[in-house]
Amino acid sequence: MSEVVHMIDSEVFLAFSTYATIVTLKMMLMSPLTSYFRLTRKAFANMEDTTLDLSKEDKKKMVKVDPDVERVRRCHQNDLENVIPFLVVGLLYALTGPALSSALLHFRVFVGSRFCHSVAYLVPLPQPSRALCFMVGLLTTFSMAHRVVTTALYL
Amino acid sequence: MSEVVHMIDSEVFLAFSTYATIVTLKMMLMSPLTSYFRLTRKAFANMEDTTLDLSKEDKKKMVKVDPDVERVRRCHQNDLENVIPFLVVGLLYALTGPALSSALLHFRVFVGSRFCHSVAYLVPLPQPSRALCFMVGLLTTFSMAHRVVTTALYL
Amino acid sequence: MSEVVHMIDSEVFLAFSTYATIVTLKMMLMSPLTSYFRLTRKAFANMEDTTLDLSKEDKKKMVKVDPDVERVRRCHQNDLENVIPFLVVGLLYALTGPALSSALLHFRVFVGSRFCHSVAYLVPLPQPSRALCFMVGLLTTFSMAHRVVTTALYL
Repeated sequence: MSEVVHMIDSEVFLAFSTYATIVTLKMMLMSPLTSYFRLTRKAFANMEDTTLDLSKEDKKKMVKVDPDVERVRRCHQNDLENVIPFLVVGLLYALTGPALSSALLHFRVFVGSRFCHSVAYLVPLPQPSRALCFMVGLLTTFSMAHRVVTTALYL
Repeated sequence: MSEVVHMIDSEVFLAFSTYATIVTLKMMLMSPLTSYFRLTRKAFANMEDTTLDLSKEDKKKMVKVDPDVERVRRCHQNDLENVIPFLVVGLLYALTGPALSSALLHFRVFVGSRFCHSVAYLVPLPQPSRALCFMVGLLTTFSMAHRVVTTALYL
Repeated sequence: MSEVVHMIDSEVFLAFSTYATIVTLKMMLMSPLTSYFRLTRKAFANMEDTTLDLSKEDKKKMVKVDPDVERVRRCHQNDLENVIPFLVVGLLYALTGPALSSALLHFRVFVGSRFCHSVAYLVPLPQPSRALCFMVGLLTTFSMAHRVVTTALYL
């Protein structure tokens, strides 16, 4: 990590910026998707939100838990639990100056695994497809963390 | 992004540091606020937490779900889902070397929208005030992500 | 913050990389731990996940809420709410060029407090042990945020 200043201007860092932004946007799209399901399923979390539904049905009954909404929310939560560690570890990993091919492999496998994970969660596909996507993403992040810790170790 | 090394030392990066820290502190304050509501509403999530309440009431009844506590928790969760993407995308955006005025506009609008969002959620204000705050924050982050992807694209 | 370019190559930044990766890995381990409890307690969140249990019991009854699973999930959520702010504020803090001894103190105290917090949550230890761990972590992050805002203030 002794030449990190030069690394931040490298193709690895550009690649990280690109993939990090893509997977962050994918994670953020879970919010509008949740809103979409809340509106179409008429299942809101707050009493004041029921006014967003323009029908004249009983508003009180719209504050309820809907299985489809909960599924999107669990998918979103799983993204938070896995994408955010990737973003942090990936940034530090990019600064350790890995080979471009190695870095691209990590970024592409991770981002691919998270897209597959969301599809597997929302369709839903039969297990263990989702569990495998989750494992691939986790191991990719572990692999990057391994490089950070072995390259930059300072306790 | 070819002169990123010079960018990290710029006014844009200082501005990002300031606004990122402010909005992170605002998000973190949701934790003590949740604790405050749990203590005053006597609604805890764990049996062992009930000893934090010094009254001699029945402890078992204090492990319960309270609507005010849940509202603060949803507000906190919404912060996690939106502030964290801003922090990551904003950092990469600051490194792309945007114009200072443009960067300040993005940072100020986003941070302002999140403060308004929390007020709208906790009062609560009638909809669509909260939905608008949420949308403004989301679009600001999308705008920054657009610049990152168009400036630093490396797939 | 005028010499930030030199700072990113410093021992403080190496120390941040190390401690940030350690505490991120610790947070990520909550996911497999949740899976472990879901499998052993036979308490799944999705109908399709019940096929991961190879016994011939009634699958429908396995979609349930289990107190041990919920405890691990709350512990994980608390990590998300506290570790992520540390990662962001800590990164900016490391770029302000603090004294190495001061930075190491912050990083070690924070990471230590989060390990203790998880132990206190999962055992569980009697309160206020967990509340104290939480407070120590929060105050450490506030202390770093204070330095960032006073060093890099640009509104």
